[in-house]
Amino acid sequence: MSTTQAMIKSRQTEKEINGIRTQVVCTEFSDHIFVVLTQYGKIGTLVLVTPDSKSSDVSTPMFSTKVLMGKDEPLTHVCAKNLATPVSQEAGNRPVLLGLALKDSSIEAVKLMRDLIKSCQVW
Amino acid sequence: MSTTQAMIKSRQTEKEINGIRTQVVCTEFSDHIFVVLTQYGKIGTLVLVTPDSKSSDVSTPMFSTKVLMGKDEPLTHVCAKNLATPVSQEAGNRPVLLGLALKDSSIEAVKLMRDLIKSCQVW
Repeated sequence: MSTTQAMIKSRQTEKEINGIRTQVVCTEFSDHIFVVLTQYGKIGTLVLVTPDSKSSDVSTPMFSTKVLMGKDEPLTHVCAKNLATPVSQEAGNRPVLLGLALKDSSIEAVKLMRDLIKSCQVW
Repeated sequence: MSTTQAMIKSRQTEKEINGIRTQVVCTEFSDHIFVVLTQYGKIGTLVLVTPDSKSSDVSTPMFSTKVLMGKDEPLTHVCAKNLATPVSQEAGNRPVLLGLALKDSSIEAVKLMRDLIKSCQVW
C-alpha cells in the first residue's frame, strides 16, 4: 500500500422523487460510510446502521439500527435499514451513518431513494 | 427566497500537523455543520457540540458536548469544544456534528487544527 492515502471520497447528487427535491451526500471513511438523504437541506435524524457480526448466514445478514440524534420513531428504523443495507453490503459490511430528513417515507419513495444513493456510490 | 436550494456545500483539505497527515471535511446542512477531522481516515468519535440557548451573556456563550458514537473520554469533550466553538459561532450558532480521529490531541496541534478547519469553511 502507498503511504499516501487518497483524498476522502465524497459525492452528492439530487433528484425529484414524487415531486420532492431530494438531495444525497455520500462520504467514504475507512470505518463508516456517511450518507445524508434530505428533502429539507438538513441532516435530520442520525441513524447508525450496523451489520450484525453474530449472523452466521451470509445470505441473510442482520442489521441493527440505533438513532444517535433526533426523533426515535419505528418508521425511521425501517427506512434506515432499507436504505443503508445495500450500502453496507457493497462496502464490505462497513457500518453506515445515515442522516434522514424525509417528507415522503412511502415504500415507493424509499425504493427510488435507494437508487439515488446507489447513483452516488463512493464505496 | 428562491425555490431552488443550493447544492449542499462541502469542502475538504489536508495538511501535515506535527508531521501527521490531517484531513478535514466540512459539510453545511441547514440544521448542523458537519466536520470530520481525521488522522486515521476514519470518522472516529462522533461528538455533537451544541450552543447553550440558556446562556444570556452573548460574549461568553456556553457549549454542551455529547458523544453520540465512540469512546466517551474527557479529552474528547475538551478537544471537541475547542474545535467546534468557532465553527458554531461563525455559522449563526448552529450545532456542530464533529467526527474526531486524532493521533495527536496536544494543545498545539488542536490550535493548528482550528486553522485547518477554518481554511475549509463552508458556513
